[in-house]
Amino acid sequence: MIRSFFFLVLLLIFAIAVRAQQLQSPNDQLIMSFVLQADGTPTYQLNYKGQAVIKPSKLGLHLKNDAKSLLDGFSITNTQTTSHDSSWEPVWGEEKIIRNHYNELAVTLTQNGTNRQLIIRFRLFDEGLGFRYEFPAQPNLVYFVIKEERTQFAMAGNHTAFWIAGDYDTQEYDYTTSKLTEIRGLMKSAIQPNASQTPFSDTGVQTALMMKTDAGLYINIHEAALINYSCMHLNLDDKNLVFESWLTPDALGDKGYMQAPTQSPWRTIMVSDDARTILASRITYNLNEPSKIEDTSWIKPTKYVGVWWEMITGKSSWAYTNEVPSVQLGKTDFTKVKPNGIHGANNANVKKFIDFAAQHGFDGVLVEGWNIGWEDWFGNSKDYVFDFVTPYPDFNVTELRDYAKAKGVKLIMHHETSGSTRNYERHLDKAFQFMKANNYDAVKTGYVGSILPKGFYHYDQWTNNHYQHVVEKAAEYKIMVNAHEAVRPTGIARTWPNMIGNESARGTEFQAFGGSKPNHVTILPFTRLIGGPMDYTPGVFEMDISKINPNNNSHVNSTLVNQLALYVTMYSPLQMAADLPENYNRFLDAFQFIKDVALDWDVSKYLEAEPGQYLTIARKAKGKSSWFVGNVNGETPRTSTIAFDFLDATKTYIATIYADAKDAHYKINPQAYTIRKVVVTNKSKLTQLSAAGGGYAISIVEATKEKIKGLKKL
Amino acid sequence: MIRSFFFLVLLLIFAIAVRAQQLQSPNDQLIMSFVLQADGTPTYQLNYKGQAVIKPSKLGLHLKNDAKSLLDGFSITNTQTTSHDSSWEPVWGEEKIIRNHYNELAVTLTQNGTNRQLIIRFRLFDEGLGFRYEFPAQPNLVYFVIKEERTQFAMAGNHTAFWIAGDYDTQEYDYTTSKLTEIRGLMKSAIQPNASQTPFSDTGVQTALMMKTDAGLYINIHEAALINYSCMHLNLDDKNLVFESWLTPDALGDKGYMQAPTQSPWRTIMVSDDARTILASRITYNLNEPSKIEDTSWIKPTKYVGVWWEMITGKSSWAYTNEVPSVQLGKTDFTKVKPNGIHGANNANVKKFIDFAAQHGFDGVLVEGWNIGWEDWFGNSKDYVFDFVTPYPDFNVTELRDYAKAKGVKLIMHHETSGSTRNYERHLDKAFQFMKANNYDAVKTGYVGSILPKGFYHYDQWTNNHYQHVVEKAAEYKIMVNAHEAVRPTGIARTWPNMIGNESARGTEFQAFGGSKPNHVTILPFTRLIGGPMDYTPGVFEMDISKINPNNNSHVNSTLVNQLALYVTMYSPLQMAADLPENYNRFLDAFQFIKDVALDWDVSKYLEAEPGQYLTIARKAKGKSSWFVGNVNGETPRTSTIAFDFLDATKTYIATIYADAKDAHYKINPQAYTIRKVVVTNKSKLTQLSAAGGGYAISIVEATKEKIKGLKKL
Repeated sequence: MIRSFFFLVLLLIFAIAVRAQQLQSPNDQLIMSFVLQADGTPTYQLNYKGQAVIKPSKLGLHLKNDAKSLLDGFSITNTQTTSHDSSWEPVWGEEKIIRNHYNELAVTLTQNGTNRQLIIRFRLFDEGLGFRYEFPAQPNLVYFVIKEERTQFAMAGNHTAFWIAGDYDTQEYDYTTSKLTEIRGLMKSAIQPNASQTPFSDTGVQTALMMKTDAGLYINIHEAALINYSCMHLNLDDKNLVFESWLTPDALGDKGYMQAPTQSPWRTIMVSDDARTILASRITYNLNEPSKIEDTSWIKPTKYVGVWWEMITGKSSWAYTNEVPSVQLGKTDFTKVKPNGIHGANNANVKKFIDFAAQHGFDGVLVEGWNIGWEDWFGNSKDYVFDFVTPYPDFNVTELRDYAKAKGVKLIMHHETSGSTRNYERHLDKAFQFMKANNYDAVKTGYVGSILPKGFYHYDQWTNNHYQHVVEKAAEYKIMVNAHEAVRPTGIARTWPNMIGNESARGTEFQAFGGSKPNHVTILPFTRLIGGPMDYTPGVFEMDISKINPNNNSHVNSTLVNQLALYVTMYSPLQMAADLPENYNRFLDAFQFIKDVALDWDVSKYLEAEPGQYLTIARKAKGKSSWFVGNVNGETPRTSTIAFDFLDATKTYIATIYADAKDAHYKINPQAYTIRKVVVTNKSKLTQLSAAGGGYAISIVEATKEKIKGLKKL
Repeated sequence: MIRSFFFLVLLLIFAIAVRAQQLQSPNDQLIMSFVLQADGTPTYQLNYKGQAVIKPSKLGLHLKNDAKSLLDGFSITNTQTTSHDSSWEPVWGEEKIIRNHYNELAVTLTQNGTNRQLIIRFRLFDEGLGFRYEFPAQPNLVYFVIKEERTQFAMAGNHTAFWIAGDYDTQEYDYTTSKLTEIRGLMKSAIQPNASQTPFSDTGVQTALMMKTDAGLYINIHEAALINYSCMHLNLDDKNLVFESWLTPDALGDKGYMQAPTQSPWRTIMVSDDARTILASRITYNLNEPSKIEDTSWIKPTKYVGVWWEMITGKSSWAYTNEVPSVQLGKTDFTKVKPNGIHGANNANVKKFIDFAAQHGFDGVLVEGWNIGWEDWFGNSKDYVFDFVTPYPDFNVTELRDYAKAKGVKLIMHHETSGSTRNYERHLDKAFQFMKANNYDAVKTGYVGSILPKGFYHYDQWTNNHYQHVVEKAAEYKIMVNAHEAVRPTGIARTWPNMIGNESARGTEFQAFGGSKPNHVTILPFTRLIGGPMDYTPGVFEMDISKINPNNNSHVNSTLVNQLALYVTMYSPLQMAADLPENYNRFLDAFQFIKDVALDWDVSKYLEAEPGQYLTIARKAKGKSSWFVGNVNGETPRTSTIAFDFLDATKTYIATIYADAKDAHYKINPQAYTIRKVVVTNKSKLTQLSAAGGGYAISIVEATKEKIKGLKKL
């Protein structure tokens, strides 16, 4: 006892002498070192299996109107090390049980002169690091304004990055793959037009940022628990290869209004020599708080179709008329205007979708463009743009409610805000009450265009606070939220599991706006999906958009089977089948996979993964014995080889394999596919060609001996 | 017939040739000329009895991001002249029936090249001009952003102005009286410290701006019906003596987001050679829309006391504790903190005020500081600063509700927002529901400090829209609103008569913050009150504030009788008796006037008026035979002479005259007064000395012969 105490004292003396603290991951593969520089600047570094992942990097915050920022002049006044190992069950997710296992170091710093205290808390997991700034209650630091967070991430080499341009108003860029030093030169071409966009730097990129080192390490930088704080971008010093945090400013250029006791979001760095580990990591959720919703029985994974793709492709319109260039809600009388004849959200069309959903077992039907205001909704900085309760004359709320109910289908509400956040908040209670009265229990929100109030951005603290307000208010009403154009998720769905979807990246709609890169979906799981599920709206079967709208020459850069695989590879408890019923009716054999695929999972196995190239994931349906496998492939045709050793060794299964035909190609032959049924066991192996922009999808169901009669073994 | 038609054609030809239009007031004393300059710039001028009031002045708007502003290049494509004469009954007011009598000219301008249409509508009343810009529905002007309104008011001379500094965030400056050319030199001293302030120009002043010409003309410039628009300041070109509109900007520096069809507020210019005509004018209300509230039976003039002056003077506090520098609503437990012992809104003290109100016939008791959050409410840009429903532990909502009800008194709610407008809107419904559940039917709102969202100002379009939202939402709940620190009123109370009060100027509280000029109250009726009633909170009897709080050496620059007169001269349907009960108890004979004075009137007679010097008004109580007279006097002692010819010739009255004692003086002897009862008829005349900063107050009640026995005739 005395000896160990003596050892501890020695350790402490040593630690204080070099002002360094080390933290190891539970599996010992990661080592984080915290070092206070001679001038009292806190720094950290991160090694993985002896390789530098983060070279010594500064930590701190630049404050506004403050004689002394929280950057230097610190002394360590306390350190605390703890270990944690627990597990929890998400309401929905990629696996039934999530383990939360880390070693923690909390360093209390006291600033000379100001006597201010700052705690930097590090949590080191087997697959990465999370850390945050904590501002405890104290007399000399209560209210303060962040001019900029100065968190560095010093890279150890000129890695390959999968990046999109940093932007305060859009996350919907196509990914660029390049060396870090090439970012500056490629920035201009990386910034494609968007409904709202505010890029800020020639070397600014967004998180989650995925990278690969020349030595084959995979590194991912993101954030977790972004609550009441500004969203972080990364700005690269491309001479020194050091990323630094770059928060989204408000109208005054300030980046955060803070009130101690409080804390920053977590900054996360995942690392592995196996890309699959990044996908399997639950660091982001583990760094969020447990669910604040006690009764979660009303939160249900949902598969849906919708009156949507026809507007996205330009076949029909959200607007009811072309004759009202200036809608004034409460004054404009839509019963007196001439309909444009192509309004999508009309009773007959909605019923067609309800019928289709009922016929094929879908849970819901999203209807966009049902409510008045779409004639001038966009680009006008219009404050009172929607009221969220008044339908167009050809959309009968009660009739459709009852029709859907009789068919066992839920209508899904749509609340486009046009970025007019105050207007939405003013109508929120009534809009949610209207939903409940009409049997809606999920809402898709939208924030297309510039944010109101003017001067604010999609990802600043003020606007992030709005999204959070909507999610929490929705929870009061037992409403599920699928927010589009909102800030990228950071695992908040653990705390607020009614946030069942988000867009916050370039979704399928861009396939009808000129197209996305064929390897886009091999990157998203390493970037956007690190923070939570995406309402990617897959399932497009007709790749030639001109067949839907002759004036739209877009092409969906994907094979049909690639679209099927997305239901497995792009995890979400909310999955749309985006295409038109008539297109599904042409390929009902392939459509069967979309009908069959599960939304919620007991287990997920990441079989193959290389960002930008390919991805193969197997998942076991929640509470069932069936499995689903998805493979998506990038630009280069590739043969995937997987073993079925994840299957129960005591069982026999029938696998239905949806594969690209040999001559399939995302551009020239996307609809060429094969479907075959085979018998598989946990000894089975599959070697399967995936076309350019292709993939495969497999549904695997436990089978009796009778059922497998006549089927070949794989 | 043919001849008159020919004459009309000639007139039209003439008008188009010189591109000029003339409009006369119903009494022919005012002539407004509209002239289109050679380059198509619209201009107007205004003459009164042959004297220039407004010299030729340009009209128009500078647009943002627009190739062509709405400044020039116009042709007249239509003119329309109409006359209007009607009358209407306000829900409350200075008179029972208001006449709305004007001649109107609407000039339709079409801009060459853009083909945009702009209508300038002029309404010429006997006592002034109102005009506004109208933007009709049209293809080439739907959404547009105002960079600046360019409305000129060219003065005909170097008038004397009663002005406060133009400011985006405060209206609470003391008035400066100076020549127009002296404004620049006096600006620095005119800007006294305030909780939030954003002055913008060395020659910028606020409306309503009162002026007097060397020739003895009184001119007043203000605006009416400020709805969904930015509040107008006036910026003086002091070389040419031309005022130009200067709107309050938003966070981006923009001044208005417009959607046609729409219009600007009215710009008003009142003019007379008799200052009393300015006070008697109802132009501002007449230029507003009729009431939008159908059932107004719940809107009731209210006389109240409150737990307020003790906090203003510093005797007690809004905050409950001094131990919580960082309140986190929902987390901070006020039952566990040490009370500071001077919290004003405690049960015992509130009961004391309820008792006092009941004893003396007051309708209501305002209680500030009742709800949690006051410990760090100010100056921190705190978003979630109040929840408006949670009381401090020593304020028992239910108990006090029942106590007040049993005593026949209404509690008045207080909602300080600290400028955090979004937070208030988020809580508005619940806060109003809480009020109704607890028997409150009036709320005093407050906007002390900087506006949130950051970058916005107290008087920009965005924030004005907030105040309007609160008034309209309150009307839904049948709640009366008294908004402090909100934008100055512009007659909107005609349309929303539940807006029974506003501060929007330097109120009595400044007498405890160092004092206001003794002539302040002789100016306010010509400036602030042009737009609507002010919750000035008069009735202070103890002028030496150190007697309330030894640490406060402020002095109230007013005699006691001046304070009484304010209940007549400062018209408001909401009147506070601001002082502490113990101070009223020392002067119960004088307090009787405050108890007696009416709040609502059949008729008002403006007997004497000179801005900055004196003011005498007589008013007949609504539905009663009694009259009340108030005289307030500026710095120079003065003998006022008035006739009682406004009284009913068939009746005899007893007048109770509250007058300054001969040696009274606002500074050295403010509490010296006399009270005498005399008999008056409509033949009576009064000659009465008013002290420096003094005045007199008279209550006049119809009397039987028995009652007047022993009383002298005046």
